[in-house]
Amino acid sequence: MLSFSEIILRLQSFWANAKFNETIPNSTQGCIILQPYDLPAGAGTFHPATLLRSLDKTPWAVAYVAPSRRPTDGRYGENPNRLGSYYQFQVLIKPSPNNIQDLYLQSLSALGLDIYAHDIRFVEDNWESPTLGAWGLGWEVWLDGMEITQFTYFQQVGGIPCESISVEITYGIERLAMYIQEVESIFDIVWNKNDSNTSKKLNTYADVHLQAEYEFSKYNFEVACTEFLFQTFENFQSEARRCLESNLPLPAYDYTVLCSHFFNILDARGAISVSQRQEYILKIRQLAKHCATCYKEQEDERAKRLEKSKIKNNI
Amino acid sequence: MLSFSEIILRLQSFWANAKFNETIPNSTQGCIILQPYDLPAGAGTFHPATLLRSLDKTPWAVAYVAPSRRPTDGRYGENPNRLGSYYQFQVLIKPSPNNIQDLYLQSLSALGLDIYAHDIRFVEDNWESPTLGAWGLGWEVWLDGMEITQFTYFQQVGGIPCESISVEITYGIERLAMYIQEVESIFDIVWNKNDSNTSKKLNTYADVHLQAEYEFSKYNFEVACTEFLFQTFENFQSEARRCLESNLPLPAYDYTVLCSHFFNILDARGAISVSQRQEYILKIRQLAKHCATCYKEQEDERAKRLEKSKIKNNI
Repeated sequence: MLSFSEIILRLQSFWANAKFNETIPNSTQGCIILQPYDLPAGAGTFHPATLLRSLDKTPWAVAYVAPSRRPTDGRYGENPNRLGSYYQFQVLIKPSPNNIQDLYLQSLSALGLDIYAHDIRFVEDNWESPTLGAWGLGWEVWLDGMEITQFTYFQQVGGIPCESISVEITYGIERLAMYIQEVESIFDIVWNKNDSNTSKKLNTYADVHLQAEYEFSKYNFEVACTEFLFQTFENFQSEARRCLESNLPLPAYDYTVLCSHFFNILDARGAISVSQRQEYILKIRQLAKHCATCYKEQEDERAKRLEKSKIKNNI
Repeated sequence: MLSFSEIILRLQSFWANAKFNETIPNSTQGCIILQPYDLPAGAGTFHPATLLRSLDKTPWAVAYVAPSRRPTDGRYGENPNRLGSYYQFQVLIKPSPNNIQDLYLQSLSALGLDIYAHDIRFVEDNWESPTLGAWGLGWEVWLDGMEITQFTYFQQVGGIPCESISVEITYGIERLAMYIQEVESIFDIVWNKNDSNTSKKLNTYADVHLQAEYEFSKYNFEVACTEFLFQTFENFQSEARRCLESNLPLPAYDYTVLCSHFFNILDARGAISVSQRQEYILKIRQLAKHCATCYKEQEDERAKRLEKSKIKNNI
């Protein structure tokens, strides 16, 4: 039985070694493996390696785990299927290789799933992120009736139409683990290696995350100071704008991600009315669009900096 | 030649499968692999999986990558040996197994280093973190004269003497990669798999991080609004205290980590005088101590919540 750690390591190894077909020059050697971004966010799409990099003309292929915080989904650790924080495994490849669907099915095989013995369906489900000004054509992947993955071909990101179409694959790691390990509650997922030679206690998802689920539910729903949250949102928004005035899209984008996170806490805290909700989503989208535009405008400048650095180092 | 991604994957696999000796009940099956924490921090020690978990009585063994932001170390991407953001690989095992030094040397072998062909020295270097109220007995590990790892046995964390002694091993991943790949500049580190059958372009550290090094140096040294930074520090400090009043050490600790991050930007921005510096470090240490104390006090309560959850799920 694969542990939670092993599922992640196998997906990372699979995508690092994946053989893309010839449609992608310079990228047939697989994905680079990145680490999660060090800011709290609701989904792997927020990682600059996806949101900003998908705007560049140059090929790009990455895979990473994305710890995702969704304050409104918290249930104090008492619901076996709902978490305020969970994990996505994210793959982004640009342009999308022709054999991407095959590769995805092979990745399931790499997890020990017999893809011929199961009912695997691609169900049309176009994706949209109102806060990121992004949308794409996509499919949910269903494994024996359970959604395990979202497939999306980005059409627009940060309000900018994509020149080169990226494919984003987002696995729900807990869902896969529950299926593979045949457990009914997220909290029963076995995290570490199953040593069949010993009867040693294993760490479960509950050992790692139960307490945080309880405390962050309590904080997000009951304790967070709304005045503090509103003020932090405004301050981060202003600092993001200041960064953009100085042509620094990466620091500006960091503050945009934080704005989105503080908005999510405000939302969980019940501090936002229906009309305010739209207003705040619009504020974040405006920031995301400005970051994307500023980033896109500097594409040549970035390429020159990189080239200069490589010449200096004789690469 | 191992790529940067492969070095990380091998360290993760090694520690997931490491055989501890019998001094640790229930933990001979190796480390659980965690993801980096989703908040910006200066070192892997800030991850709650190290700072708070090292305070518990129960055994605990984890390994994870820690992206680390050190604003004052930024050099606009122009120095081949200095970065404002870099990676640590962190191992924390409690209590420390007797064979830890052997295991560490085996981990170097797992990276393809012939430990008998190199000069490997353990140089005494006790460690202290003034902001975290933590210190330990320790050694730097030198490989042919270059520091590649810090070994520390925690004596005190968050101002609390440790009941059970943890060993913390922190690898500098870039240093190891430069050594293994025989490159002179961090930016030349090869990130993805080296496909010897093709002449495909490989991604280097510069492709992934050069632009961020430039932009965050510019932001931290020149652009960041000091009034905003000071205010954010104060606001986060207050919110951390509010969390502690509600007995929520984990959310309180998140805001403590953020205080430390905003202090680091203030420091890089040159906004803090020598006397203010001590004052701010003390403020963060006070917060860290309160979080540690609050966390420690709830140990029984946490254990009960976990037990109750496991009974409910028939584990």
